[in-house]
Amino acid sequence: MFIAGQWIDKEVVIEVINPQDGKLITTVPSASEEDVLMAIKEAEEGVKIAAKMPVHERMKVLDEAAQYIENHHERFATTISLEGSKTIREANSEVNRCIETLRLSAEEARRIHGETIPFDQSAGGENRVGYYYRFPIGIIAAITPFNDPLNLVAHKVGPAIASGNAIIVKPATATPLSALLLAEAFEYAGLPRKVLSVITGKGSIIGDILVTHPSIRMVSFTGGLETGENIARKAGLKKLSMELGSNSPVIVLKDANIETAVESTVSGAFCAAGQNCLGVQRIYVQHEVFEKFTSSFVNRTRQYTVGDKMSTDTDMGPLINGREAERVEKWVQEAVFKGAELLVGGVRNGAFYAPTVLTNVPSDCIVAHQEIFGPVVLLYSVADLDMAIEKSNAVNYGLQAGIFTNNIENAFKAISEMDVGGIMINDSSDYRIDGMPFGGVKGSGLGREGVKFAIQEMTEPKVVSFKLANPAIL
Amino acid sequence: MFIAGQWIDKEVVIEVINPQDGKLITTVPSASEEDVLMAIKEAEEGVKIAAKMPVHERMKVLDEAAQYIENHHERFATTISLEGSKTIREANSEVNRCIETLRLSAEEARRIHGETIPFDQSAGGENRVGYYYRFPIGIIAAITPFNDPLNLVAHKVGPAIASGNAIIVKPATATPLSALLLAEAFEYAGLPRKVLSVITGKGSIIGDILVTHPSIRMVSFTGGLETGENIARKAGLKKLSMELGSNSPVIVLKDANIETAVESTVSGAFCAAGQNCLGVQRIYVQHEVFEKFTSSFVNRTRQYTVGDKMSTDTDMGPLINGREAERVEKWVQEAVFKGAELLVGGVRNGAFYAPTVLTNVPSDCIVAHQEIFGPVVLLYSVADLDMAIEKSNAVNYGLQAGIFTNNIENAFKAISEMDVGGIMINDSSDYRIDGMPFGGVKGSGLGREGVKFAIQEMTEPKVVSFKLANPAIL
Amino acid sequence: MFIAGQWIDKEVVIEVINPQDGKLITTVPSASEEDVLMAIKEAEEGVKIAAKMPVHERMKVLDEAAQYIENHHERFATTISLEGSKTIREANSEVNRCIETLRLSAEEARRIHGETIPFDQSAGGENRVGYYYRFPIGIIAAITPFNDPLNLVAHKVGPAIASGNAIIVKPATATPLSALLLAEAFEYAGLPRKVLSVITGKGSIIGDILVTHPSIRMVSFTGGLETGENIARKAGLKKLSMELGSNSPVIVLKDANIETAVESTVSGAFCAAGQNCLGVQRIYVQHEVFEKFTSSFVNRTRQYTVGDKMSTDTDMGPLINGREAERVEKWVQEAVFKGAELLVGGVRNGAFYAPTVLTNVPSDCIVAHQEIFGPVVLLYSVADLDMAIEKSNAVNYGLQAGIFTNNIENAFKAISEMDVGGIMINDSSDYRIDGMPFGGVKGSGLGREGVKFAIQEMTEPKVVSFKLANPAIL
Amino acid sequence: MFIAGQWIDKEVVIEVINPQDGKLITTVPSASEEDVLMAIKEAEEGVKIAAKMPVHERMKVLDEAAQYIENHHERFATTISLEGSKTIREANSEVNRCIETLRLSAEEARRIHGETIPFDQSAGGENRVGYYYRFPIGIIAAITPFNDPLNLVAHKVGPAIASGNAIIVKPATATPLSALLLAEAFEYAGLPRKVLSVITGKGSIIGDILVTHPSIRMVSFTGGLETGENIARKAGLKKLSMELGSNSPVIVLKDANIETAVESTVSGAFCAAGQNCLGVQRIYVQHEVFEKFTSSFVNRTRQYTVGDKMSTDTDMGPLINGREAERVEKWVQEAVFKGAELLVGGVRNGAFYAPTVLTNVPSDCIVAHQEIFGPVVLLYSVADLDMAIEKSNAVNYGLQAGIFTNNIENAFKAISEMDVGGIMINDSSDYRIDGMPFGGVKGSGLGREGVKFAIQEMTEPKVVSFKLANPAIL
Repeated sequence: MFIAGQWIDKEVVIEVINPQDGKLITTVPSASEEDVLMAIKEAEEGVKIAAKMPVHERMKVLDEAAQYIENHHERFATTISLEGSKTIREANSEVNRCIETLRLSAEEARRIHGETIPFDQSAGGENRVGYYYRFPIGIIAAITPFNDPLNLVAHKVGPAIASGNAIIVKPATATPLSALLLAEAFEYAGLPRKVLSVITGKGSIIGDILVTHPSIRMVSFTGGLETGENIARKAGLKKLSMELGSNSPVIVLKDANIETAVESTVSGAFCAAGQNCLGVQRIYVQHEVFEKFTSSFVNRTRQYTVGDKMSTDTDMGPLINGREAERVEKWVQEAVFKGAELLVGGVRNGAFYAPTVLTNVPSDCIVAHQEIFGPVVLLYSVADLDMAIEKSNAVNYGLQAGIFTNNIENAFKAISEMDVGGIMINDSSDYRIDGMPFGGVKGSGLGREGVKFAIQEMTEPKVVSFKLANPAIL
Repeated sequence: MFIAGQWIDKEVVIEVINPQDGKLITTVPSASEEDVLMAIKEAEEGVKIAAKMPVHERMKVLDEAAQYIENHHERFATTISLEGSKTIREANSEVNRCIETLRLSAEEARRIHGETIPFDQSAGGENRVGYYYRFPIGIIAAITPFNDPLNLVAHKVGPAIASGNAIIVKPATATPLSALLLAEAFEYAGLPRKVLSVITGKGSIIGDILVTHPSIRMVSFTGGLETGENIARKAGLKKLSMELGSNSPVIVLKDANIETAVESTVSGAFCAAGQNCLGVQRIYVQHEVFEKFTSSFVNRTRQYTVGDKMSTDTDMGPLINGREAERVEKWVQEAVFKGAELLVGGVRNGAFYAPTVLTNVPSDCIVAHQEIFGPVVLLYSVADLDMAIEKSNAVNYGLQAGIFTNNIENAFKAISEMDVGGIMINDSSDYRIDGMPFGGVKGSGLGREGVKFAIQEMTEPKVVSFKLANPAIL
Repeated sequence: MFIAGQWIDKEVVIEVINPQDGKLITTVPSASEEDVLMAIKEAEEGVKIAAKMPVHERMKVLDEAAQYIENHHERFATTISLEGSKTIREANSEVNRCIETLRLSAEEARRIHGETIPFDQSAGGENRVGYYYRFPIGIIAAITPFNDPLNLVAHKVGPAIASGNAIIVKPATATPLSALLLAEAFEYAGLPRKVLSVITGKGSIIGDILVTHPSIRMVSFTGGLETGENIARKAGLKKLSMELGSNSPVIVLKDANIETAVESTVSGAFCAAGQNCLGVQRIYVQHEVFEKFTSSFVNRTRQYTVGDKMSTDTDMGPLINGREAERVEKWVQEAVFKGAELLVGGVRNGAFYAPTVLTNVPSDCIVAHQEIFGPVVLLYSVADLDMAIEKSNAVNYGLQAGIFTNNIENAFKAISEMDVGGIMINDSSDYRIDGMPFGGVKGSGLGREGVKFAIQEMTEPKVVSFKLANPAIL
Repeated sequence: MFIAGQWIDKEVVIEVINPQDGKLITTVPSASEEDVLMAIKEAEEGVKIAAKMPVHERMKVLDEAAQYIENHHERFATTISLEGSKTIREANSEVNRCIETLRLSAEEARRIHGETIPFDQSAGGENRVGYYYRFPIGIIAAITPFNDPLNLVAHKVGPAIASGNAIIVKPATATPLSALLLAEAFEYAGLPRKVLSVITGKGSIIGDILVTHPSIRMVSFTGGLETGENIARKAGLKKLSMELGSNSPVIVLKDANIETAVESTVSGAFCAAGQNCLGVQRIYVQHEVFEKFTSSFVNRTRQYTVGDKMSTDTDMGPLINGREAERVEKWVQEAVFKGAELLVGGVRNGAFYAPTVLTNVPSDCIVAHQEIFGPVVLLYSVADLDMAIEKSNAVNYGLQAGIFTNNIENAFKAISEMDVGGIMINDSSDYRIDGMPFGGVKGSGLGREGVKFAIQEMTEPKVVSFKLANPAIL
């Protein structure tokens, strides 16, 4: 692992397993509490170094790290695919996204603006001139998930460096290798040593110390709701950024282009084996077109190729591990047991789980309200838009949503009334570009990421006021 | 007239006539070149005073002027109606808009922000800290039209005072009284004397000197295209703000709510007797609904009450004078002579001209491409949206447009392809709120008004850079 | 108390005592857990009503509440002074500030802007147009302190209403009356009933339920560090705004105007009997001018009039209660016991505590690093600016700071290196206007208030993307 | 020359001469009116193509053009130096600036944001949602000067492409080669053919048609005041961007670091042989330090190496041609004749003119108020800051200024009172980074450049309003 510029080995290790075949890829050190304390101590110096880095140096480091990744594109993509559950096509695309995230971070570094303040708007302020500017918040602890093991790390590290902070990353235990590669890129790019650490280890051992240490000013977490809530309670007086997933709804109205809707939502549901915080989980189809949509959706699902991750022909690989596949299996079985109809899929093979479509799912099933985080989608027939919105909102998540309609009134009704952080008209819920604000409401989290928005959260305003002997303009 | 805080009388006067009955309302002084030179000389001092007014004093003056107008609402409304062609209902509404414009100006005064500049984005900038702020541009010459004789003056005076400039207004020769009332409100509110002048006079005598004088830094003109072009050529090295009218198009597609479209466009066409830069002049209706739309539009037009401006039952009063009514009459006659079909209206009575609907207007008629600035609207049947857009764009104007449709693709196609400064979906072209950016393309002008946007044009950035002995943050 | 538009009485009451004479002013209900649950239940409906209030209605309500306060200025000021420890002069000034805060809130209501998003910056985004806008965060729990019992409530309620949220306020137990008066103003102004509650009660009974209830999306707290930390730990997955006080430092360099520095810091130290989160607690004076500064400071302190709050001649009233005065007394005694020199003051009389100046305070005294929140100031002699900054930063607070110097390099060194949320050059730390970003680092809190900035925290971005059949501009 | 993607030759040519030795470098075509008309006709299509280019393609083109220049750095630098008067060191630096300008343009392309508009701030707007976005202004005519023959072209072309406009460049007759190289870079980068033209030719032949043609929506000119004024008068109803040079003042107060001030202003005065719109021309030194400053300045000037442009040891090369050197010579002779004292320099050798320092220059000399645009600087002794500011402002220019002082009050007095577009504290007037707002007041021009600010001028807001059947949020 990478602590403040040093590559550290440990006797105790964690095995990194390829979920596709259960084979050992490699091992990484299993950090102890002391390792975390050392990383924090280094970061206490690192944060001063980071804040003093001129913006043009921050930009150079970020651009060169991006260039390094571009130059080693294949190695990065292979690593993502090997250690995680993405196909090589999906992994290639994530590498491109990561490069974009770092370049965006470089660009945003020089756009961290404060504003001048007209103090003379209040009587007594005539002689004052000044402004506020934004300064780095301090040391950031980042805890990242397995599903985008490179780019979701970059979404925290890029903005942190751009804005002059130090950052300590704890990647998902299952997928530490991509995060370590990112550290390698920054090492190559000449990032000052104490600014970044990537600590591999078990959450049960190092999570608490990282989240509760008083020197940590901000915890940026992407992962599940339950863990997020635990962190929030433990962290105390710290800035929190929480991206906690969802079970995203999509609405398909009778006036929509059904073909487009099917194409878009099938991929939205099964991309990354459904292990995607934006993945489509619930589709509410107006009853007039329910049958047509369903049969087309099921057909398209059947064509979805599951198989070897490393083949470019594969649409979908395994889940992150067998336990997760079993959990998904159990949730589906529960639904079927309670009366849901299984239209396609429902089959597990080790860590693989077939793309699965359910309908008539009773509302008390787990899969009806929790995040499945697997390749399972629920189709519902609804009478109209009002009912579709009501059901869409009747969960404790709200990240993004989609609606298919050609009608202006319908579109804006959905925009107004759906409780989410983003709504895509004539597209599935899983659309994102790295520069847009990203985050949700309710159990989906707190705060927004997306480079510019993450930088906003990672900086604070400092007011500067000069009181002069005489009135001055500005 | 009001020169730098002094009410000045002159022997030579201009008569202010009520267009409804041709009766003399009162006279105002006819300014000479010397009067203008005096106003400019005073403004040279006024601009320094204005720039040094603390923002809270600017706000107080603007708020108290607004309050004065509210307290004398009836007098302001009656004056607008008497000297111009607005009905009392329309005049009341303009007074409210003017109050809003001044209050918005007060609010924006404290929101004139610059930004901090990260100089360290360039090597060599490490030791620099600084920002830019916005300072007043200088003396502004404002030339305003008769159709909104109060609020269009306020749209120049409010932002000018809010941003610390001096301003000299030349109101329309026909409607000087409302502008003078506005000066009275500012006098009452305690605006320093040299900051504002309202000069009544003939454009032929005082226009050139006002527009060309080297002490004037900006000319803000609202009026006709031809005059605007003349000013632009004469003004030389000055900032120009040009709001030059239009012959606004509205598109009605077959999927639209026809009733709403009729209701909205009738009022959009005949409001202020069509003397409105945003007024609907050309309506392109998809042929499937052309007949239905046309018959409903004509019916609704017949119900439009023309009569005594001062009656609250009246929908429409006279044009600004008989000459203008005659010009409108001639344009309509030319169209009819060339083959246009007159569906309703076409009748003149002194300065009154009946609400008029034409169809089958040949494209070489004046009314087909020039701005009618009268209560005349042209209906066209079109095959589809593409043709509607093409015809809408085929003129040398482009202020605002409307489109009636319920379809998302159609709406965004119109948004993308119509060459205008604003487009209203399911509304007529004549919608405006005083805080939105307002202005057009092609012959419709240059720059944008709307209080915040006018202030942007009336201020300039000044960069401040401190080079320090040592690197500093920000 | 005021629950969702109803004035509720309870049998169990809390006595509101005038700290000056210990006399009972009145009683207020002591809320139970059930009362809070009812308020939250009402707020669940209130939040929908609030979000749907058109902006112009929010503005009207805020402006009319401000007007009501202006019309009842004396009653508001007297209440602040009676129940708290402010003199009537200080109370009058707070009422003015509160009016300003509400008017600013009305103004900001119409400036809650999102931005258009150029999705076509990424390949695949060519057909997308859209934007993000900011929507209300939900139900806000506000917990407010006794020292600005009106305006610090307005700083939460004003922005909450402006941005379409529902809010439940728990004012300080000692000073509930000003907050209830504010509720009265909003009731008069026609705020929909379920949008606002002001619950009087003991923190020990109602605090937890308010802070932990899952329907509360944001906790906005102003008060002490310890309570703030407790809330942060309990609140879980909620947005936190924390304004937690400080022991603000001011630096006086030898090149400064000493007279100005004394005048400014005496008032900065003793204003509101030192019960001011921005109050000057530590002054670091360059040794060449230490003696001159000290003797002048002590002289000026002796002239500070302590006495009857209600007299306009009084500079300083009592502390909020006898216990607090005793605590302050104890802290000073500890310092003196450990070797500090008492230059003036150090005398308690009931809830009154004389303006007190200490020097040579050992660093292990409580008063050297904790927030005294009383009329006590510590003077230190320092060798140079570096030492002054180091000592200023050596505490767990960082709200605002001041520095007196005429030298550019010194000023920017302090700006760069002092760990605070605001720094005032040639002024004491306690300068604030209601529109600037306000908040601190370290133990001084999280997030920023100041109307525009509070609204930013009380709203979240929602992304809207239209995917079109054809490429479209924007 | 390069017309809409075609390299065009003409029989009539213009000779490009190396000013250093009068030798012919090459010839370029001399465009006719017809050539310009063809370029405009092509641009009429180009502007549609440009507007429809997705932002990611605009970014790619700009980045690849920048990369092309970086790859051919030496050829670009040599060309700049050969055809102009820059030394190879200065030329290298300009190439770097140009690369930065194009990269900044790519970055800004994706940051052209409009804002959502809360229409419901006005009664009647409840059912409306919408926003404004910024669209390209149209065809831009760019007329550029000889002194930065590459980067000042890039400052117009980069933003124009970034914002979706078509642009026609007419580079200075003396230095067309660098601009043609820039066209080559964009051709290589795959810019659609009709978007850019670079027309070489004489202003007397092609200037008027370019500036007056009705299809040109904006004229962006950098050059002399007189030409700028002519253009302004001819252009008519067009957006104008005018960067017109200056005779920049620097103030040196007695409390300043004299050594720093000398070092900084010598280079500020003689960089690019003084042919720099930001060059220091007038230095106002407080009399207590006048002698010290002057002798040091003169000494430093004597060390300034004049000679072969292509040598890296050379500080200063020739002026752009012999005529210009003669003009500068004449202005200096006039000053000396009228009583000015020549401290050093005053010698001409062909196109070379020695770095020249004058003092006691009477105020009626040309050099005292006009822009010398040559290596001549005037030193004045002044009593105090007030006098220095008064004299600084007493010209018809105001681009940038500098002041050397360590005192806060002095610095802010200068900031407030100097009539310029930028003021540099403890630096000379000629500091600029490519992202900051750049432009001046009075005869120094209209509008601002600097990539983001140029894009602002090259785009216009379009308002989009959806009127819905029911109230909607946003």
